[in-house]
Amino acid sequence: MVLKRKDLLGLKDLSKEELELILDTADSLKEFATRKYKKLPTLKGVSMINMFYEPSTRTRASFELAGKYLGADTVNINSSASSVVKGESLVDTGKTLEALGVNIVVMRHPMAGSCKLLADNVTSSIINAGDGTHEHPTQALLDMMTIREQLTSLKGKKVAIVGDIAHSRVAKSNIWGLTKLGAEVALSGPPTLLDHNKFTKLNVTCHHKVEDALKDVDVVMALRIQKERQGTTLIPSLREYARLYGITKERLSLAKKDALLLHPGPINRGIELTGEVADSLKSRINEQVTNGLAIRMALLYLLSGGEQNGNIA
Amino acid sequence: MVLKRKDLLGLKDLSKEELELILDTADSLKEFATRKYKKLPTLKGVSMINMFYEPSTRTRASFELAGKYLGADTVNINSSASSVVKGESLVDTGKTLEALGVNIVVMRHPMAGSCKLLADNVTSSIINAGDGTHEHPTQALLDMMTIREQLTSLKGKKVAIVGDIAHSRVAKSNIWGLTKLGAEVALSGPPTLLDHNKFTKLNVTCHHKVEDALKDVDVVMALRIQKERQGTTLIPSLREYARLYGITKERLSLAKKDALLLHPGPINRGIELTGEVADSLKSRINEQVTNGLAIRMALLYLLSGGEQNGNIA
Amino acid sequence: MVLKRKDLLGLKDLSKEELELILDTADSLKEFATRKYKKLPTLKGVSMINMFYEPSTRTRASFELAGKYLGADTVNINSSASSVVKGESLVDTGKTLEALGVNIVVMRHPMAGSCKLLADNVTSSIINAGDGTHEHPTQALLDMMTIREQLTSLKGKKVAIVGDIAHSRVAKSNIWGLTKLGAEVALSGPPTLLDHNKFTKLNVTCHHKVEDALKDVDVVMALRIQKERQGTTLIPSLREYARLYGITKERLSLAKKDALLLHPGPINRGIELTGEVADSLKSRINEQVTNGLAIRMALLYLLSGGEQNGNIA
Repeated sequence: MVLKRKDLLGLKDLSKEELELILDTADSLKEFATRKYKKLPTLKGVSMINMFYEPSTRTRASFELAGKYLGADTVNINSSASSVVKGESLVDTGKTLEALGVNIVVMRHPMAGSCKLLADNVTSSIINAGDGTHEHPTQALLDMMTIREQLTSLKGKKVAIVGDIAHSRVAKSNIWGLTKLGAEVALSGPPTLLDHNKFTKLNVTCHHKVEDALKDVDVVMALRIQKERQGTTLIPSLREYARLYGITKERLSLAKKDALLLHPGPINRGIELTGEVADSLKSRINEQVTNGLAIRMALLYLLSGGEQNGNIA
Repeated sequence: MVLKRKDLLGLKDLSKEELELILDTADSLKEFATRKYKKLPTLKGVSMINMFYEPSTRTRASFELAGKYLGADTVNINSSASSVVKGESLVDTGKTLEALGVNIVVMRHPMAGSCKLLADNVTSSIINAGDGTHEHPTQALLDMMTIREQLTSLKGKKVAIVGDIAHSRVAKSNIWGLTKLGAEVALSGPPTLLDHNKFTKLNVTCHHKVEDALKDVDVVMALRIQKERQGTTLIPSLREYARLYGITKERLSLAKKDALLLHPGPINRGIELTGEVADSLKSRINEQVTNGLAIRMALLYLLSGGEQNGNIA
Repeated sequence: MVLKRKDLLGLKDLSKEELELILDTADSLKEFATRKYKKLPTLKGVSMINMFYEPSTRTRASFELAGKYLGADTVNINSSASSVVKGESLVDTGKTLEALGVNIVVMRHPMAGSCKLLADNVTSSIINAGDGTHEHPTQALLDMMTIREQLTSLKGKKVAIVGDIAHSRVAKSNIWGLTKLGAEVALSGPPTLLDHNKFTKLNVTCHHKVEDALKDVDVVMALRIQKERQGTTLIPSLREYARLYGITKERLSLAKKDALLLHPGPINRGIELTGEVADSLKSRINEQVTNGLAIRMALLYLLSGGEQNGNIA
């Protein structure tokens, strides 16, 4: 099967079959992500640009390494050094990259919808690496891969997502992806950061008390508190947040005995979760990072033509 | 024929034959720039540094991709992260790069003559990617390639260059290059940004009224207003500039029927030109970007030994 | 012989045999550093991250080129664009890089001991590219390589190190390395920047008057005045420093007739040394840069498995 898409903009648009194709492809590439096998030069001659309008270490490095492990040519553009300074429109920037023969543009941008705007105007493939508070599809895919890998399937599994749901593109992409593959999603967060009316429309449950959301779930996903995204006044304060919603050993024990703990990183230890649970056997946080590499390799592979360039299976 | 030069510092120094060699080589490499063919590993083992003391997306990315498409090792140095902070002299920085085995240094620097200073003191090849208000030879070469490609030859063609001539290294390089290949150049810009006495010595014509410059030309080249280069007071203001010198559909219609519209990018839509003409059939702005890639590949190839490393034709 | 270490954190920990293995390996790789031979793809499939929490051109470019000349995949992370902004702990950052399959992390960090902290917590190899005022082992190794190359052996050679000893990680690494290989080290610097009681314990001599330190030495090593490391008040002032400790032709003539002059760069001409001596025949400053490349290639090679990946000799 082939992914018949030019771009990966979000999980809202993807079918169950497309999600499974990406996850299956990532599974086959996992041995390259773990570096059991060093290089798969299937993207030799493919050029990708990492265009990050927001600072990022992990996501940018993950995409850059995914490209390099597959033999692609990778170039980085950061907003501080870019034409943004010179006031160029995003579409004009995209047209320039297209004219430079760039096959894949990985973009992170503070505005929701920016990736779609770019994708609609250029022939290059666009991968959304986070657009405002809208979607962060590769993060959700790596979460789904991690759950599927550990629990065989997503069908019927219960996943609690805890934190700043309102500002979280990770939560939104996970809601779309997890429910499409048959998981049940429970959300919990401070009332200022979780609008129950808005989210219950998406076939998920919302809980003021974090304990209610965690009860008997298979997976606990703690979101990062985006200090930089909330302006100066945090409501609740970090201290209140940690007391009311932080994942502690006690709270984690409400979930199933073998429940998995996920976090997109970077962790604020003592806020979203305690250091104790972050380093516990339930934590799959480092596994998530490796799976992120596999997911990004899979997408680069699939968007570059996939099987047409030689089957990896 | 071989380019018997260590460096490319400006078009003022190049002979007609050298200009044509570079343009011909770029023509042969165009199919790699358009990515019809993916990789030409002719620069395997060649190292190049992009040393940019001024911010740039397009030029830096264009050089970096040109290097990578030819198989070179490319390393970026930006002023903000560089030894400049530590107060090292430019010549000492150059000596260090030479001692690091760097074959080609692509430099952009705010001071006119900086590339020559570097070139005179190191054995590495220096390519000027813009030195103050002096020259920007690769931009002019890509302009010339675009005109030649569309109009067969530059000989006898009329080219109008409109805008901030005084601060434009692009204009200066184009004046040298275009006149050497037999084109006629007409300049127009606000009196504060175009000193007629100075430029008429260069065998070009100067026009206060943009309409006079545009009449019956084959090519209209709008320059970028370098807001960042003019301090806080713009004379004229951007609004006045757009009204008096901006390229509109009406003004463009003064040129020949099939005239080409060029702009070095990034475009300030509504200032140097209207969005309408930027996106019109006369616009060759995206083609210029692709040709820039071809020109840079050609120069990297020629300065690395050219035919001695295997003929590309 | 094989370097049985995961990391290179400092020269204090290395045995005489290990130091000699690194120097011998660098000698064999020198022809790749001088680019007599272009590429040695022995690190194909090896990934390295340059993680610089302090600005650097030369050291970062040297490591990046060393990696590329050996065929490694190299990725840069600068502090300004990194998770540091987001408050992640260094160990968590390291765990992420490990999970991304990174084989070698080259780190520069303002805190002494940071490289050891990282090395103790991840399986990736860590190379210290400067940690606070603690050590800068690759700089000292390249100094030792340069001396050995010019004077056949370090045994019994007299080396004067002049400058801001207190803040200099270069001086500290050199003291450990040089004394282990049998050289005699004499230190000189302003009393505010050289604590005689502290350093005489390390089997070196300390001299208030620079002339006393320089007498009859084989090597004069001038340290960089780290303006950025000393806060606003320099004691002595730069002018006083230059007058009292700057290496002039007269002072250099106190050393042996064929004495070598070294400086880690970037040079502040007229402060640590005069332009005249920097450009004199005694200066080995550019040779040091090339040897730095050879040393870094040697370490990347040795830490990646060395002979197990095929002998270079």
